[in-house]
Amino acid sequence: MVASLRLPSLTSLLFPATTRYPAALRRTVCLRNRTASGFATAPSGTASPETKSEVGRLRSDQSVTPRSQDFNAWYVDIIASAELADYGPVRGTMVIRPYGYAIWEAIQEYLNVKFKETGHSNMYFPQFIPYSFIEKEASHVEGFSPELALVTVGGGKELEEKLVVRPTSETIVNHMFTQWIHSYRDLPLMVNQWANVTRWEMRTKPFIRTLEFLWQEGHTAHATPEEAEKEAKQMIEIYTRFAFEQTAIPVIAGRKSKLETFAGADITYTIEAMMGDRKALQAGTSHNLGQNFSRAFGTQFQDENGERQHVWQTSWAVSTRFVGGIIMTHGDDKGLMLPPKIAPIQVVIVPIWKKDTEKAGVLSAVSSVKEVLQTAGVRVKLDDTEQQTAGWKFNFWEMKGVPLRIEIGPRDVTSNCVVVSRRDIPGKAGKVFGISMDPSTLVAYVKEKLDEIQSSLLEKAISFRDSNIVDVTSYDELKDAISAGKWARGPWSASDSDEERVKEETGATIRCFPFEQSHGTKTCLMTGNPAEEVAIFAKSY
Amino acid sequence: MVASLRLPSLTSLLFPATTRYPAALRRTVCLRNRTASGFATAPSGTASPETKSEVGRLRSDQSVTPRSQDFNAWYVDIIASAELADYGPVRGTMVIRPYGYAIWEAIQEYLNVKFKETGHSNMYFPQFIPYSFIEKEASHVEGFSPELALVTVGGGKELEEKLVVRPTSETIVNHMFTQWIHSYRDLPLMVNQWANVTRWEMRTKPFIRTLEFLWQEGHTAHATPEEAEKEAKQMIEIYTRFAFEQTAIPVIAGRKSKLETFAGADITYTIEAMMGDRKALQAGTSHNLGQNFSRAFGTQFQDENGERQHVWQTSWAVSTRFVGGIIMTHGDDKGLMLPPKIAPIQVVIVPIWKKDTEKAGVLSAVSSVKEVLQTAGVRVKLDDTEQQTAGWKFNFWEMKGVPLRIEIGPRDVTSNCVVVSRRDIPGKAGKVFGISMDPSTLVAYVKEKLDEIQSSLLEKAISFRDSNIVDVTSYDELKDAISAGKWARGPWSASDSDEERVKEETGATIRCFPFEQSHGTKTCLMTGNPAEEVAIFAKSY
Repeated sequence: MVASLRLPSLTSLLFPATTRYPAALRRTVCLRNRTASGFATAPSGTASPETKSEVGRLRSDQSVTPRSQDFNAWYVDIIASAELADYGPVRGTMVIRPYGYAIWEAIQEYLNVKFKETGHSNMYFPQFIPYSFIEKEASHVEGFSPELALVTVGGGKELEEKLVVRPTSETIVNHMFTQWIHSYRDLPLMVNQWANVTRWEMRTKPFIRTLEFLWQEGHTAHATPEEAEKEAKQMIEIYTRFAFEQTAIPVIAGRKSKLETFAGADITYTIEAMMGDRKALQAGTSHNLGQNFSRAFGTQFQDENGERQHVWQTSWAVSTRFVGGIIMTHGDDKGLMLPPKIAPIQVVIVPIWKKDTEKAGVLSAVSSVKEVLQTAGVRVKLDDTEQQTAGWKFNFWEMKGVPLRIEIGPRDVTSNCVVVSRRDIPGKAGKVFGISMDPSTLVAYVKEKLDEIQSSLLEKAISFRDSNIVDVTSYDELKDAISAGKWARGPWSASDSDEERVKEETGATIRCFPFEQSHGTKTCLMTGNPAEEVAIFAKSY
Repeated sequence: MVASLRLPSLTSLLFPATTRYPAALRRTVCLRNRTASGFATAPSGTASPETKSEVGRLRSDQSVTPRSQDFNAWYVDIIASAELADYGPVRGTMVIRPYGYAIWEAIQEYLNVKFKETGHSNMYFPQFIPYSFIEKEASHVEGFSPELALVTVGGGKELEEKLVVRPTSETIVNHMFTQWIHSYRDLPLMVNQWANVTRWEMRTKPFIRTLEFLWQEGHTAHATPEEAEKEAKQMIEIYTRFAFEQTAIPVIAGRKSKLETFAGADITYTIEAMMGDRKALQAGTSHNLGQNFSRAFGTQFQDENGERQHVWQTSWAVSTRFVGGIIMTHGDDKGLMLPPKIAPIQVVIVPIWKKDTEKAGVLSAVSSVKEVLQTAGVRVKLDDTEQQTAGWKFNFWEMKGVPLRIEIGPRDVTSNCVVVSRRDIPGKAGKVFGISMDPSTLVAYVKEKLDEIQSSLLEKAISFRDSNIVDVTSYDELKDAISAGKWARGPWSASDSDEERVKEETGATIRCFPFEQSHGTKTCLMTGNPAEEVAIFAKSY
């Protein structure tokens, strides 16, 4: 096979695992083929379109690497096999395919409503930002300048001032806010945009870290620091509920350390998720920007006493990275496993027949079941194609992570029943026979099962998370926990340089000081000094 | 006032028209202030952030230029006063403000449903395209190379290959399609994306032509030319219905001439709208791309006989330009006038009281009316702020184009009635007293009026359009029609160079060969030869 092409560092991407699924399942598997130019492997910051390096493309004999064997290889295999995304032609870019995009649309639909309910309006800022803007806020330019993409030519001419392709929009937002805000009556100003952003990342990974990604970025301006703080906290709370209730990801919400705070913020709040390999994923952030940008851009208002003051601001974002978080939280060796609330397809119906005389009855039954569920608001897909066997379809839709499968065969038609299988409980244990086709019974059953799956995925993720967080009281214990692949939680009041040292020596960083803190006196695990809070340390994406 | 700042060519932007609305109405009017660096005036292709040229900014004494006096000045005044958009810091870019963006969201919501109903899935392609891709399709590169923005630096390094910021995505779409399409079973492949695009335009105008704009672009691949043709026609039909039914813009649908066909298409279908100044606006296009891109990118499939064939393709788009079309079709001297179906706010409620004893009763009535309408699915806004007079509010919401206004004063409370005013019928003629507050009566009345306004706007636009199209039989008649500011419709079978000549001599171009054609023999207005079709000539945006 392809052993001769393997390079040591690429093993995880090229490893030809035992074939578990038929090759036909993966007719468009491209992701694992781009080792020469694709994600996580390109050594330089220059664009090398894959058209130049088609070497090493493997079109057949693809298989999904078992998760336990190689988590990263498993991850990219799932993305390819479930047709969530593909590599773009430019290094580090990603094409989000319809099935992956549908998950993003479910995320958008939920958050968009929540943002509007809390008083935010959508709008759109241009993506080209004069380079000089980026330089106005000192820590912002330091944080972002290494990863900027610059437009230097427009309409065939060299530009007088190079333009930054937005990595985030605080600077241009403040430039505009300065023109729109005059009086306290103009505040609070609370907006959001759904947009693409560009960060010239060196080590990329589909959904998790790409050169261009999609996100929403909220930006608000307030008259007082209290209001800004309340807003920043409100938004991290919305993200937290979204993570728990929609995506079944039990994130830990908290505050970033100084070192990990957003470039330009006073405080960064974060939600941190534990992936299946126990690495942490920063899944959303909300920043209290204080007056940093308003001072840099002169964003002022006249208060009720007629005095000029700088506004207090926030910004907050979640991105397509969340899709990666969902894959890495719930997926298993069979593929993706989607929480029903954000699954583009909640129920797939597979008709089964052998003899032609059975066909009409089965097809009529599956159609009416589909109709019944659709009318009840269930997102349902009928797979009545005849090119593949039922077994192939079972595997295919399991790979796609569809929460429930309904099978209907000739005997089911006779008994007016269906067979229902849960994606989250493998084999016979997850399969229930004899569920009545009677519309009210069936709809109630399906909805109940979808709710059960939603809860069950969350519970499983919570117990996985909790069994992999170790409470530590010393640096040695922290090191042991991290080298065992776990998260370490312990009291921390040490210096920035101590924090840097932990990172260098263990690879772990402070993910957050969680909002949930135990009472009682605490002693810093590093210094033995009194500490006010515990911090969580982990390796992260 | 500002007469001393006027330059002849800038008259339309700077003209200080008689103040019709109080200055307070336009506290954030910025659009007209950017004459030195803003839209339609910057002479060069280089970026000149307005921070460099704050000269000429006028913050006060803004007013809306009467439409009849200067259509262009009126247009930018409306955009500023109704807070639809503002200029971005980079020449030719635009910030879409919440009220303008809400109109775009209404457009998105409608079209997104139609696209899905017709079998298209949303997805996302990266915006950075290797420069070499653009060069692959000969006429495509010719059409687009003059207006490309190029990223040449990423992560602090010069890129090996410069990247194009997408002006449209046919090239990258085909690059990916080539990897995804193998067999006839993979066809049709029908996708859409909502995205930003960049075209380095020299003469820009908010919403109509901006350096960056938002759009949707559909891309499909089919096994036969017939299917591609059917798809291209289906999509222009969806756009046509959208224009008529949602935006009340009576577009004329037809086929572009060869000269006006999209760079890379075999056939371009278009919808052409007549603006209030009788210039044509190309409001949406649908292209039959034939095999042009599939041949350039090797996008092939194996047909049912096992033979390799190139796919047949389409692409189609509408953009934020449509918002400009809505403004220029329906607006009047009082401001914007929005068709109810796409109005972010369909009904505004203004409470009126003088004595404090009246206040509670009026406020309670407006709240319950708001509740009733909201529950009935009407998009309603209650303006109960106390900083402005009722008269100021009337002007403000007329400027914003809200279709219906409900006024409730103390006497109305006593009689359990409301006053309803139509935005599209000025003064007393559009005002009806004594509409019962009884929920079922009021809801029925409001819905009926909204429907009436929707129809009435369309009818008005149709009669305006039809009274400004002249049927011509000779070039002299065509020239007369065009110099009278009208559209000319006449039989055409002349050459491309004749078409060029018309453009040079009259400024008008062939907008389309309309789908609706009269029967009977036709004689080309230019050559006297037989002609199969009439064409429509007009000056355009």
